Amino acid sequence: MTYKSPVAEFRFLLDEIVNFEAVAKTDRFAHATPDTVQQILTEAARLCDKTLAPLQTVSESDPCRFENGAVVTPKGYPEAYRAIADGGWIGMCADPEYGGMGLPITLGTCVNEMMGGACMSLQLNPLMAEGQIEALEAHASDELKATYLPKLISGEWTATMNLTEPQAGSDVGALRTTAKPLDDGSFEITGTKIFITWAEHDFGGNICHLVLARLPDGVPGTKGISLFLVPKFLVKGDGSLGDRNGVRVVSIEHKMGIHGSPTAVVEYTGAKGWLVGAPHAGMKAMFTMMNNARLGVATQGVSQAEAAFQKALAYALDRKQGRPHDGDTIAGHADVRRMLMTMRAETFAARAIMLHCAVASDLAEATGTDEAKARVAFLTPITKTWATEVGMRVTEMAVQTFGGMGYIEETGIAQHSRDVRITAIYEGTNGIQAMDLVGRKLADGGEVAMTIIEEVQNCAEIARAREPELAQKLWDAAEALREATDWMVQAEMLDRQAGAIPYLYAFARVMGGGAHLRASKADATRRALAAFYINRLLPEVTGLLAHARAGSSGLYGLKAEDLAM
Amino acid sequence: MTYKSPVAEFRFLLDEIVNFEAVAKTDRFAHATPDTVQQILTEAARLCDKTLAPLQTVSESDPCRFENGAVVTPKGYPEAYRAIADGGWIGMCADPEYGGMGLPITLGTCVNEMMGGACMSLQLNPLMAEGQIEALEAHASDELKATYLPKLISGEWTATMNLTEPQAGSDVGALRTTAKPLDDGSFEITGTKIFITWAEHDFGGNICHLVLARLPDGVPGTKGISLFLVPKFLVKGDGSLGDRNGVRVVSIEHKMGIHGSPTAVVEYTGAKGWLVGAPHAGMKAMFTMMNNARLGVATQGVSQAEAAFQKALAYALDRKQGRPHDGDTIAGHADVRRMLMTMRAETFAARAIMLHCAVASDLAEATGTDEAKARVAFLTPITKTWATEVGMRVTEMAVQTFGGMGYIEETGIAQHSRDVRITAIYEGTNGIQAMDLVGRKLADGGEVAMTIIEEVQNCAEIARAREPELAQKLWDAAEALREATDWMVQAEMLDRQAGAIPYLYAFARVMGGGAHLRASKADATRRALAAFYINRLLPEVTGLLAHARAGSSGLYGLKAEDLAM
Repeated sequence: MTYKSPVAEFRFLLDEIVNFEAVAKTDRFAHATPDTVQQILTEAARLCDKTLAPLQTVSESDPCRFENGAVVTPKGYPEAYRAIADGGWIGMCADPEYGGMGLPITLGTCVNEMMGGACMSLQLNPLMAEGQIEALEAHASDELKATYLPKLISGEWTATMNLTEPQAGSDVGALRTTAKPLDDGSFEITGTKIFITWAEHDFGGNICHLVLARLPDGVPGTKGISLFLVPKFLVKGDGSLGDRNGVRVVSIEHKMGIHGSPTAVVEYTGAKGWLVGAPHAGMKAMFTMMNNARLGVATQGVSQAEAAFQKALAYALDRKQGRPHDGDTIAGHADVRRMLMTMRAETFAARAIMLHCAVASDLAEATGTDEAKARVAFLTPITKTWATEVGMRVTEMAVQTFGGMGYIEETGIAQHSRDVRITAIYEGTNGIQAMDLVGRKLADGGEVAMTIIEEVQNCAEIARAREPELAQKLWDAAEALREATDWMVQAEMLDRQAGAIPYLYAFARVMGGGAHLRASKADATRRALAAFYINRLLPEVTGLLAHARAGSSGLYGLKAEDLAM
Repeated sequence: MTYKSPVAEFRFLLDEIVNFEAVAKTDRFAHATPDTVQQILTEAARLCDKTLAPLQTVSESDPCRFENGAVVTPKGYPEAYRAIADGGWIGMCADPEYGGMGLPITLGTCVNEMMGGACMSLQLNPLMAEGQIEALEAHASDELKATYLPKLISGEWTATMNLTEPQAGSDVGALRTTAKPLDDGSFEITGTKIFITWAEHDFGGNICHLVLARLPDGVPGTKGISLFLVPKFLVKGDGSLGDRNGVRVVSIEHKMGIHGSPTAVVEYTGAKGWLVGAPHAGMKAMFTMMNNARLGVATQGVSQAEAAFQKALAYALDRKQGRPHDGDTIAGHADVRRMLMTMRAETFAARAIMLHCAVASDLAEATGTDEAKARVAFLTPITKTWATEVGMRVTEMAVQTFGGMGYIEETGIAQHSRDVRITAIYEGTNGIQAMDLVGRKLADGGEVAMTIIEEVQNCAEIARAREPELAQKLWDAAEALREATDWMVQAEMLDRQAGAIPYLYAFARVMGGGAHLRASKADATRRALAAFYINRLLPEVTGLLAHARAGSSGLYGLKAEDLAM
């Protein structure tokens, strides 16, 4: 059982559901022609299916090890990483001036999902580089750009993001790492960072750490934080590697999953670093790339759903047990069929939302309009949260489809469910995404939300003649969401927060219904999936919105301590 | 962070919610006085909190190993097993004639949950013995009983259940293990069994395997299956251990969780066995104990929810991050508070359903009435499935509460979520439980279902003056469930099956609402939890019942193969 990149599914979504054409029509992305799209998807699929997918389970028998201060990665990882880099995939969306291909984030999202489905632990490495490249493009000095971007884009060097400290997780502003100005314009960075993804490896080259730290005159909280680039090796004038810098990995974590991706504690002891962006503007620089980084995590959620579904379907179509209603395998049992259809329908809807968000990102980049920027900002927390929730639910269902064999690690299905678990946590927990949605993202009085709800209702109207019953159900669900949105924008912030997660889930459910109904005209399979989704999953919206509108008083009627028994 | 047995919670549920008094009033269980109950719970809690809980994480650094044909268990397990046995816990519900205490299953369920919360991997061992003791009490010859029961009840010997074979998982009838009659009245057992829990260990004594196999004249399918007792060591006339029997463990599995519980492939090569029950009546014998075995798995689901909730609450009350609305820890953030209340409310409701089922089991045993028997039969699939679903959801939420630390194995919270995952699969997958519910258990035309729904509505009526709004919401949800039940009993079997899982979930949700509303009069905390459950979680019923009543046509409109991309 292996992984096959869903190229045709991407094509269908780009062409029929998320209006990628609008991106390709812009001057900025005019080179993303249908031929280029097809070529990109096909080439990436070849890499993923042939080179990366065989490594997926290697991390289980041969996880990352920390030996004498160095990290040894699973067998085959260094070569596979090199294949990703040599294919130009790390810089596919980066600035051509520094060697990138300047392609739309939408295509990068498809490729990231494929790489994640093939081998999520390894995919995380280029994902880090993509974020850093974006941050440097937007905020670094020309000198830093010239020195670092070509090597990061080519994959010769790799990248990390250093935000978290033991006392500063979700609350980044509590960080204590310091930066002391030196006479030569550089800075001395001192502090300890935790949960640093891919902070060490055996791929060679330099490792470039982007580090949040506080300057001596930095005020407490997020407003006093600056961003620094701290390389593992100092870079000489000719671009070659010089002395080791004062940064080292102290240990790596023993985690529930992604055993092929080292997560490290990193110590900075007077390491030499360079300021990226203005002093005390580190959080702003981080925010620039946050949308795309969160979209990157969403690709992981969808990727695990896709990979697990493929394996569950193959297993169900092979396994004979009992007397199924249809065919001679367990795929013919009603409840197994329910699980298979749920997995496929959920994966489709989550992917549609993810690509909708990616298209908005590209349009924001290409057109610079406030409307496009507001849409991607609004969709990002929904996309990150829902894609990772679907990742968890679908992988859990895939394990269930395998029955007892699902619990045996050798089948590889449990690994997807363990690997994907982190995606609901990192890059801002899903709870924090939901706070962002009902707080900052509804601060426009619900304008973007209402626009999207209206689009779903328009989609229902268009489909009404063809699918009157499904269209009505979708329209009604969207209407209930509209009412809940009205309630939200008028409610006190604490009341919004109390219902933030169920509100976000309901929003995603309704958007997923829109994508399904639009897809339903394509063929019988998509029609059946749309009916399944709208008749069986969309009705969850009623319960979710009741929860969303329950307010905060029910949460604070008792002390948290009283919950202890 | 450790585990504390919820003794007061059990007392509350027994006294106020599930009417344990009715059990204690019967002649059969007259000795289960309030004093005895208190003593049993307190003593078990001491064992669990002091002796078992410290072993919970040992299985992660020191999992079961298979070495030279023997299984080495985690450090401390043999001594802890001995403490369980010496405390008389294995035989607490067993026949006093053979050394048991003859106590109600309801108390055994409380104790099993506590042992599971303290150390689920080890708890599985006595759980196996309890099932085997019950099977032998009901079906074995007096001679077998006299030889085996005292040793199993004292814990000197341990027990296993052998059903599954590679081609015979959920479809037990497909098994191929054979039993050949010998002249001395015993049988020669040959075949391979997989997924055998605790088939080997280093606790000493004998290991007694209950094995399903087919006699030469056994027809194909479940009707040709017989049950045999096959000891690891043949037992001499004086009860001491003799020669090794022809049974051996070939390997143990590498699993997602319960690393302290060995899961083995067992080979029978002409092993000597003794018939238990009548020839070809093996499935009947298995069914006798199935209700209680499934209740045993339910204790695991609730136990992991409880243990994970305790740890998540302790973490949330300690961790400082950001500016919470209430207090100075993350427990004061709205979404963290939502998770904490969800965990507590869900655990309470699942435990109430579990104890409701256990009380029904005791009343069936004590009174022998058809009504009591039908009630426990009806509640068993709901209890097993819902308790294990809640176990999965709550442990996942506990991981989320820990944030990044939740993904690090050393905090021990991820282990609960990995351990509990098996409970939705073994002892009949949750999908199969749901098939049982809408098939066999609704074959009475919905009589038991309607009785329980009426009880919930009566509970709502009683609470109406005190809690008009909550009572109405519960009454309405129960009414919707009644209508869905009407639909179910009139529907074709395939249509029932297509909605079996959501119907089961909705049934559990409504029962949980009844338990919460009844509890709400006790104090402010329980009132707040009831309001939380009824206002925020119970509304899920609407969506679940829409799914439940969607019928089968939507599942079979396309071939399963068409789901591939």
